[in-house]
Amino acid sequence: MPRLRLNISMSLDGYVAGPNQSLENPLGEGGEALHEWVVVTRSFRRIHGSEDESGETGADDDVMAESFANLGSSIMGRNMFGGGPGPWAAEPWKGWWGDDPPFHHPVFVLTNHAREPLEMQGGTTFHFVTEGIEAALERARQAAGDGDVGLGGGAEAARQYLRAGLVDDMQIHVAPVLLGGGARLFEDVGDVRSRYEPLGLVSSPAVAHYRYRRVT
Amino acid sequence: MPRLRLNISMSLDGYVAGPNQSLENPLGEGGEALHEWVVVTRSFRRIHGSEDESGETGADDDVMAESFANLGSSIMGRNMFGGGPGPWAAEPWKGWWGDDPPFHHPVFVLTNHAREPLEMQGGTTFHFVTEGIEAALERARQAAGDGDVGLGGGAEAARQYLRAGLVDDMQIHVAPVLLGGGARLFEDVGDVRSRYEPLGLVSSPAVAHYRYRRVT
Repeated sequence: MPRLRLNISMSLDGYVAGPNQSLENPLGEGGEALHEWVVVTRSFRRIHGSEDESGETGADDDVMAESFANLGSSIMGRNMFGGGPGPWAAEPWKGWWGDDPPFHHPVFVLTNHAREPLEMQGGTTFHFVTEGIEAALERARQAAGDGDVGLGGGAEAARQYLRAGLVDDMQIHVAPVLLGGGARLFEDVGDVRSRYEPLGLVSSPAVAHYRYRRVT
Repeated sequence: MPRLRLNISMSLDGYVAGPNQSLENPLGEGGEALHEWVVVTRSFRRIHGSEDESGETGADDDVMAESFANLGSSIMGRNMFGGGPGPWAAEPWKGWWGDDPPFHHPVFVLTNHAREPLEMQGGTTFHFVTEGIEAALERARQAAGDGDVGLGGGAEAARQYLRAGLVDDMQIHVAPVLLGGGARLFEDVGDVRSRYEPLGLVSSPAVAHYRYRRVT
């Protein structure tokens, strides 16, 4: 069965987005610093269409490549798709992933508001799921083929899957950033102590990557 | 002026002690796992009296040695001294640091209950301070001579000094441990985002060490 793999960047003080998230500032105040280690990697540039040899290699690049490897579908919260509350507009916007999103597979977006699937360039189709996290996971597993299901956030989506005990593997990337507030990851997530086994950590001077596997 | 240096181990989910701390279980359930990286280092064994070459060297040992270097005095909360609430008994116990505590300098213990200083072997004297964190810091600075003042915990003592903006340097050791509850470090600690500058991180396979310096 496809595994549900959570991959998310977190500040040292435990936040996966800064305070005051908004349409203009989707990562919250200071939140972009969580992802500085990502955008400099060669794998990130490749995923975003670069065909040259630019970008850094090394431990972070290896982790970044692995986090995207062997995924057949993904799940994300509405905040991570495009933010904003309430019903979709008559001509709703297409999220902040651009015309050719980096997923290249079906993406299931958790929302309370139904919407037709949105087919983008490059193989990414956003499906909007209103029936909750278990329905989204079921559909994502069916769509994943031989691959796994990726889960990246936002905080509320990640917390819901953790709380329900549905995350099989997780890799938490702790950046040396203090945000002082925002969206916490490890808050009301159930008994993670007995549920997960640590598989060690690797790090660069920019970020440390902590890996866990579900044992129960 | 002597700097106040916070050195503390934290779980990935943000706790510096596990749930249900007690006299029998001072680190809380699972909390001892936070310190596994410490007790295997050569520096830790030396500090605790070992004169042989046992214990591991490497990044963690270097950090451990540095965290104890050039300290002229220390501050800790009552929980870290010996736990337990309320007035001291007629013949109060001497804490859980043994007859020859590893500090070898004056240690100022934050408490609401006055008590005579407690002189141990090896140069450690515990002074019990009932006038609050600023008075304790003032006394610790006077006692530190040319050294700095160390602060190790517990959580409440660390949070109080962070909230008051009195911590000059901090090094947070994030172990690949999930505790699922307990005493959080970064909770109600004020504007750490603008107050601290990250100075990078180093890690071993066992723990990552994050370093910060106060900028305002």
